[in-house]
Amino acid sequence: MAEPGALIAIGGHEDKERDRVILKEVAGRLNGGKLVIATVASHEPEGYFESYQEAFGALGVTNLVELYVEERSQSSDNPALEALDGAAGVFFSGGDQLRISSQIGDTPIERRIRELHEAGAVIAGTSAGASVMSETMLVKGASSESYRIGDLHMAPGLGLIRDLIIDQHFAERGRYGRLLGAVAHNPRLLGVGIDEDTAIVVEGRAFRVIGSGAAYVVDGAETTHSNIAEARAERALSMFNVCMHVLSSGDRFDLDTRKPTAGAHEEGAEARKDRD
Amino acid sequence: MAEPGALIAIGGHEDKERDRVILKEVAGRLNGGKLVIATVASHEPEGYFESYQEAFGALGVTNLVELYVEERSQSSDNPALEALDGAAGVFFSGGDQLRISSQIGDTPIERRIRELHEAGAVIAGTSAGASVMSETMLVKGASSESYRIGDLHMAPGLGLIRDLIIDQHFAERGRYGRLLGAVAHNPRLLGVGIDEDTAIVVEGRAFRVIGSGAAYVVDGAETTHSNIAEARAERALSMFNVCMHVLSSGDRFDLDTRKPTAGAHEEGAEARKDRD
Repeated sequence: MAEPGALIAIGGHEDKERDRVILKEVAGRLNGGKLVIATVASHEPEGYFESYQEAFGALGVTNLVELYVEERSQSSDNPALEALDGAAGVFFSGGDQLRISSQIGDTPIERRIRELHEAGAVIAGTSAGASVMSETMLVKGASSESYRIGDLHMAPGLGLIRDLIIDQHFAERGRYGRLLGAVAHNPRLLGVGIDEDTAIVVEGRAFRVIGSGAAYVVDGAETTHSNIAEARAERALSMFNVCMHVLSSGDRFDLDTRKPTAGAHEEGAEARKDRD
Repeated sequence: MAEPGALIAIGGHEDKERDRVILKEVAGRLNGGKLVIATVASHEPEGYFESYQEAFGALGVTNLVELYVEERSQSSDNPALEALDGAAGVFFSGGDQLRISSQIGDTPIERRIRELHEAGAVIAGTSAGASVMSETMLVKGASSESYRIGDLHMAPGLGLIRDLIIDQHFAERGRYGRLLGAVAHNPRLLGVGIDEDTAIVVEGRAFRVIGSGAAYVVDGAETTHSNIAEARAERALSMFNVCMHVLSSGDRFDLDTRKPTAGAHEEGAEARKDRD
């Protein structure tokens, strides 16, 4: 039996012009096969496909097709399903995570994507496309603010990754507050905040970080107090004893033991000088 | 012998027009005495004094004087020192924390302020005025970004609070990354990030949170790995097993045991409805 493919959750704004570290990671898992660019998250998908066509083309990936549905009713139609036939990977572009879940959730398209993944296809998603991989997904909440009671919308995601809630554009949009708030709701979920041009590559029950920024893991398992069920709306969150891990390129995280492992020293590190 | 007065570190933009919770806390500790508004942090202090005169005036504090020095040489002059005579409190307004430390650090003004504090005067500071209270202060570093190796300026502060490094405008400017980076340098320092319109009131070796936002405590004591001394410049920080506490109004924190305590339920909380 085949192993499920990797899941690659990207924090948005992945480099498409220079090193393309993240897109390379996706490309490297296609073995020359077809990549489906799913632009379902976007209300106006024009331009997304072309920009990925160019970026992946430069990496030698030429077999690309677009999957877009204007309306949920199209998610059972043959043309949409045919786009997925024999795909080696699916890449969800950014936009609105609710568009993905409401247009394709519980439709033949979603089932086909899940089957492809189970059979070994890589499933990647950036920004909204990353959020939607969660079992429960973050839909909306204040950026650049501490979490205030009641100020968060969550919804069922595609559930490709269990027990995880993903946020994106993380440091760039100051979303620590809302991820802490999300985890406070139920610390069973591990919070993962992913910076722009940064991704987690999930294989089995572990992930590795790639890209130029950081991925933050918020583990609320040992939290000793929170006011999330007690405080009035608009009041600032209290949450004691949260465990946080800041992971960068090469670091790994085990989702079952909830423990990080440091990556090897990066190449070129030998060029560092001792401080004196 | 008198007890030292309270230290009130404010995250900037404290409410000056509505409830004025934080300014009330300062006013309540003056017992009708003189409050010195130290505008030293500002390159152009015009308007700061007047705005505090108005805000504190509405709270019944009428004995206000301004302390400003254009040049370090004036920090030994009588007019500046006389402003502090018999003061019940000193309030540092915002601006540039380096201006405070470089203009009054190790001068008769600083010594006089320290003496006042030791004798019971309240010392408050907002924004730059909060940062400068730390032993080592954060001067400059990226906002809305994860910490990158080398991207942080620290300097000796006034050292009114030991073993603490304070950051301000915290959630609003997405400064989690830089505070984590600062703590990674030496986890002996406890990081405290204070939101706008939020303050910590330090008495002895404990503080209480007041205001509308949150105060974040970053405790690196149990950190198991960081790449701060190993990675190349510009590389994103790795830092495993950081303990974070999110505190809001009424919560307390013991600086010696490094443990938080939840505040009592707020007034009006009885109006909450059970969810059904």
